[in-house]
Amino acid sequence: MSTFGHYFRVTTYSHGKSVSCIIDNCPPNLALSEPDIQPQLNRRRLGQSTSITTPRNEKDRDQRPKDYGNQTIDLYPRPGHADWTYLEKYGVKASSGGRRSSARETIARVAAGAVAEKWLHEAYGIDIVAFVTSVGKIKLFDDADGMSSDPAFLSLAESVTKAKVDEFLSVRCPDDAANRRMEDRIAELRNQHDSTGGTVTCIIRNAPVGLGEPCFDKLEALLAHAMLSIPAVKGFEIGSGFHGAEMLGSAHNDPFVAAPALDAAAQKTGIPRSRLQTKTNHSGRHLNGMLIFFNVAFKPPATISQDQTTARYDASGEGVLAAKGRHDPCVVPRAVPIVEGMAALVIADAVMAGPARPPGGQGAGCQEIET
Amino acid sequence: MSTFGHYFRVTTYSHGKSVSCIIDNCPPNLALSEPDIQPQLNRRRLGQSTSITTPRNEKDRDQRPKDYGNQTIDLYPRPGHADWTYLEKYGVKASSGGRRSSARETIARVAAGAVAEKWLHEAYGIDIVAFVTSVGKIKLFDDADGMSSDPAFLSLAESVTKAKVDEFLSVRCPDDAANRRMEDRIAELRNQHDSTGGTVTCIIRNAPVGLGEPCFDKLEALLAHAMLSIPAVKGFEIGSGFHGAEMLGSAHNDPFVAAPALDAAAQKTGIPRSRLQTKTNHSGRHLNGMLIFFNVAFKPPATISQDQTTARYDASGEGVLAAKGRHDPCVVPRAVPIVEGMAALVIADAVMAGPARPPGGQGAGCQEIET
Amino acid sequence: MSTFGHYFRVTTYSHGKSVSCIIDNCPPNLALSEPDIQPQLNRRRLGQSTSITTPRNEKDRDQRPKDYGNQTIDLYPRPGHADWTYLEKYGVKASSGGRRSSARETIARVAAGAVAEKWLHEAYGIDIVAFVTSVGKIKLFDDADGMSSDPAFLSLAESVTKAKVDEFLSVRCPDDAANRRMEDRIAELRNQHDSTGGTVTCIIRNAPVGLGEPCFDKLEALLAHAMLSIPAVKGFEIGSGFHGAEMLGSAHNDPFVAAPALDAAAQKTGIPRSRLQTKTNHSGRHLNGMLIFFNVAFKPPATISQDQTTARYDASGEGVLAAKGRHDPCVVPRAVPIVEGMAALVIADAVMAGPARPPGGQGAGCQEIET
Amino acid sequence: MSTFGHYFRVTTYSHGKSVSCIIDNCPPNLALSEPDIQPQLNRRRLGQSTSITTPRNEKDRDQRPKDYGNQTIDLYPRPGHADWTYLEKYGVKASSGGRRSSARETIARVAAGAVAEKWLHEAYGIDIVAFVTSVGKIKLFDDADGMSSDPAFLSLAESVTKAKVDEFLSVRCPDDAANRRMEDRIAELRNQHDSTGGTVTCIIRNAPVGLGEPCFDKLEALLAHAMLSIPAVKGFEIGSGFHGAEMLGSAHNDPFVAAPALDAAAQKTGIPRSRLQTKTNHSGRHLNGMLIFFNVAFKPPATISQDQTTARYDASGEGVLAAKGRHDPCVVPRAVPIVEGMAALVIADAVMAGPARPPGGQGAGCQEIET
Repeated sequence: MSTFGHYFRVTTYSHGKSVSCIIDNCPPNLALSEPDIQPQLNRRRLGQSTSITTPRNEKDRDQRPKDYGNQTIDLYPRPGHADWTYLEKYGVKASSGGRRSSARETIARVAAGAVAEKWLHEAYGIDIVAFVTSVGKIKLFDDADGMSSDPAFLSLAESVTKAKVDEFLSVRCPDDAANRRMEDRIAELRNQHDSTGGTVTCIIRNAPVGLGEPCFDKLEALLAHAMLSIPAVKGFEIGSGFHGAEMLGSAHNDPFVAAPALDAAAQKTGIPRSRLQTKTNHSGRHLNGMLIFFNVAFKPPATISQDQTTARYDASGEGVLAAKGRHDPCVVPRAVPIVEGMAALVIADAVMAGPARPPGGQGAGCQEIET
Repeated sequence: MSTFGHYFRVTTYSHGKSVSCIIDNCPPNLALSEPDIQPQLNRRRLGQSTSITTPRNEKDRDQRPKDYGNQTIDLYPRPGHADWTYLEKYGVKASSGGRRSSARETIARVAAGAVAEKWLHEAYGIDIVAFVTSVGKIKLFDDADGMSSDPAFLSLAESVTKAKVDEFLSVRCPDDAANRRMEDRIAELRNQHDSTGGTVTCIIRNAPVGLGEPCFDKLEALLAHAMLSIPAVKGFEIGSGFHGAEMLGSAHNDPFVAAPALDAAAQKTGIPRSRLQTKTNHSGRHLNGMLIFFNVAFKPPATISQDQTTARYDASGEGVLAAKGRHDPCVVPRAVPIVEGMAALVIADAVMAGPARPPGGQGAGCQEIET
Repeated sequence: MSTFGHYFRVTTYSHGKSVSCIIDNCPPNLALSEPDIQPQLNRRRLGQSTSITTPRNEKDRDQRPKDYGNQTIDLYPRPGHADWTYLEKYGVKASSGGRRSSARETIARVAAGAVAEKWLHEAYGIDIVAFVTSVGKIKLFDDADGMSSDPAFLSLAESVTKAKVDEFLSVRCPDDAANRRMEDRIAELRNQHDSTGGTVTCIIRNAPVGLGEPCFDKLEALLAHAMLSIPAVKGFEIGSGFHGAEMLGSAHNDPFVAAPALDAAAQKTGIPRSRLQTKTNHSGRHLNGMLIFFNVAFKPPATISQDQTTARYDASGEGVLAAKGRHDPCVVPRAVPIVEGMAALVIADAVMAGPARPPGGQGAGCQEIET
Repeated sequence: MSTFGHYFRVTTYSHGKSVSCIIDNCPPNLALSEPDIQPQLNRRRLGQSTSITTPRNEKDRDQRPKDYGNQTIDLYPRPGHADWTYLEKYGVKASSGGRRSSARETIARVAAGAVAEKWLHEAYGIDIVAFVTSVGKIKLFDDADGMSSDPAFLSLAESVTKAKVDEFLSVRCPDDAANRRMEDRIAELRNQHDSTGGTVTCIIRNAPVGLGEPCFDKLEALLAHAMLSIPAVKGFEIGSGFHGAEMLGSAHNDPFVAAPALDAAAQKTGIPRSRLQTKTNHSGRHLNGMLIFFNVAFKPPATISQDQTTARYDASGEGVLAAKGRHDPCVVPRAVPIVEGMAALVIADAVMAGPARPPGGQGAGCQEIET
């Protein structure tokens, strides 16, 4: 399925060398120009920092099979990639089967997400900001208690902006010391021809109450679906998340309190908001003025500059898949705008499904004029 | 949305006091009788053990608002429940707004899942088994390295059955010592009028290769969606999961090897399987003969037998929501069949979408005869 | 597919001897009681008049295979029924394959449609009225010019009500002479053990402007889908319809004029309406204050009280399928509430998709309360 | 909604001056090149014959608002177009609101349909052929009895091909005399600055049994939906259609007979077919070897070279919308490939949903390779 969303509906595709998206039912009268979209695409681009990746600016040119130094890629399905699954499923080798290979398809997600973000900010004052919270075993927050119990996280979450996050290049971990340690670790792995995983945390501010549908399409289910659809993602947790499983109910229950005044961006929209909010936010998604926040775990990139022993396509035995020359040792810094984009698609879709939709907030994907 | 799945499509609903489901497009010629479904419903039922819950057998009668000892429930939205969100979204108080309140809706999921499981087993030899891997801070496996690196987990996953899991009542943690410690902890919390969370791990054996669709409907995305739609779930991880974010690519990449012979159940189906599988399974979902496995985190139940200070519906101030008499201090033992059921719905839907669908495996939801 | 609609979503099903429906995402705060639904069910019931059908009141008990006088039904797929198609598609004989056989499934459509109609009337002042415009070759209107050019039709369409239509039992053709001739024709066919088709015309008043989506889900496409899903329907035309294919553009184009004042029902809703409407209405669906109208053609019922020569299931040759004792010689009088019901489902779904949706007009199919 | 189909899923869109489509889940290993698609696009193009339209070859350049000779188009919504509805629905004037204006969007439908047709022919031997059966009041067949009772139609339907139809340019009515009379009539209307409607009949041969789903997604419902989504379509009828409403059941019921041998194209595919078919085909959609056939009514084009009196956008009064210089007086000859294309999309989608789907007939819209 190349389509995401029911109301704010995005289809991604490739044509020749390009990767594109269509937004069906996008709200009308949304002024869009390149500066609304290109910055997020730039943040996704490989090689934003010479310290952690190869010096060339890749301009959205990801690794492709021909980058492998020899023809062993024709003999061996690459471990950790979809080569084998694709062949089994479709009877076609992925390398010859389409331009949608690799994580390049996420370019289209970022572009569509940028449109959704712009609309969400203009119509609701919603802000979506993601940042890196771990690279390998180096973590921004001590995870003994979980995000939703961590005052440092909660304080950061109230104010962090994309601009602030980008002050912490190359890793986008908004803390000088942690950011530097992560950067060093990634450089070290690059030199070891290896790769590592990490986590991205995303916060959403000013979302209206009541997003998501009862039963099967709860907001957390929609977010989890979106995040696990990103290549290399292995886990998702919202609010207290896996740490919530260790908590007591008396601590986890979020008591209600009267809501404070709206911030300026939310006020400007004229959308009425909830009179109550919760004192704590272990749920991670509750009420107006409170944050929605979640964590996404990325595995280490499968492409590494090491020879790998693996079986042949024809099951005739094992051999060595030769190393390729370059690789990106850690994707989480570049995954930040992808997570933001997918979050924006979920929220835009949920907003359009729901009662808080602004008057006239109706999509206009195409036009019907009879000849 | 009360409907889940596109091909094996389930709609849950309530009518009067009952909770039911419709399966649209269920494969024809599937013999069904009560023993195919009732055992899973029984496993979800409250009060399966006197040691950890109240002695009465509830027969699927969960707590309802009237169980609260006084009328404070009319004044205060309950913390951790959807009372407030529901009122804000629909303009109706949940307590008077429908019988679908509480987690009783999951009864219908378990029933539909049991049908899907039967079909998956008969047509593909697929087995789905879930069990409890943690209660609060008590864990079945040392989680320093993550499931996919843990030989004890991988060995258990290859052979564990529902019958084996049920030998470890009341908690359904398939290890005597851990199970007993969890039981004690739950009993202790019951006496403290408190509750705790926990995790459920689910394994799927003999799934055909290639389930799930590219891009937005990858199998892990579908599973995550399903799991986060279960009430009280805060996290999902597949394969290496959050621990995968700490691993190196050279360790995480699963090398291919020739696949071993099929087990008897898979062989009997005559469905051709992949000639390759992977040596390790950090991906948690790869190839034939290998396991699909994932973890689900449940928060502690919101209903506790303690007074709670919280705001009034009308935002006029805070007060005390009086304790109710009974509660279930830990839901994960009962969540086991819910996780299995939702997993079965995802796999059945993915199988029906895909090329491995057996001939004639076409749904027959209704019938068109003209009068 | 047993589900219709995306927003106002209806699933029909049978359980034991009953036929039921679920409405997912029904707008909240809609007071419903039996008198909102039962009258439409009664109008669909067989045997509303002794003059054209058998004297017994069937109470929704339609013909079933066992009514056939002998066992030839086990040998021969019935001509005009789905017996053979069903067997080929599902590998199951329809007669033993489910209670959804026959047109009884339409009971559920009528019930769901009655709920949609009530909401549409309360929230928008929308009225939906259908009536019989032909039985066999006997027609209410001379069809030389088509409905949209016929002043008699246009005048009737502005004022006709369900109550008015029901004054013309047994056929529901709102003209004394035509109604009587149709009644006589049906009685004659009943005596000849034969059946005939007919047409039902449906009008919708006070619909807001802009229903339906551009491109593939235009309103006329949604209505056509709904109508052709009714058993025995062979044709659909909207506005000028097939006669429009004979017209000149200079006559067909509907010029715009200022809209007149709203009628009382539409005014009461407070929904703003279009300031323009069209002078003529060959489009059959345009603007506020104007009518949406369409025709639906029903074939003659396949069940007749005559022996029929046809092939055996096993293709071993032809033989005689014995006549059954009773039959309904013309379904269009009973099809009136079915057409109204399906029209209501389309309009309710389109309204909920669109910008004219009233504040809070958000569905509440189920409820999420965690225990 | 710019997306059609659930399995063979098509999204149409425009980018700058181009109109395009995406096919998601297209069966893999389908060799495609320009000659598979361009011929159908050519058949849709304006100006294929100098006798009935203006002499210039328009190369898919349809009429656009600027072709109007003055600025009255800014003051008046054009009668018969969506200008007014679009403004009311989206708050945007269509003329400035997007490149999807006019019937140019159907270019993308034709392209996608050509892909579907190629696959259907290769995998199933299915042929889809449409042709013009009326222009204004000039008709190919005497319609006293309806298509399904007309031996001339049934004989033509068994053998007609696209190549044969194109021998009857410029109108595509496969009968010399009728074609010439239609051509003359269109030329006459062009000179009178007027336009006319017409009907297109479509036949589908070699479709497998059992297409479409019970209840709401019967094949005729899917076809009706598709056809009424084409701009300017006002009616749809299948099999006996509106004439079926005049027939007796004893004549309409299609008795079963043993099926004859498959034709060569169907035989080559190896798909098993039904052993029975029907002697007559009033249903218009039944069994293997039999034809699926339906009629589609097109209204006259709304764009005419005459001044038209109509209301102003601001409802301030009426005035004259000035004539534009050129127009296409009858669209049905060009609508032939559009009807074929939409039919192909419906059949491809139904085939992929159903049990007759060939092994490996699974879509491959995009590809998942992790970096």
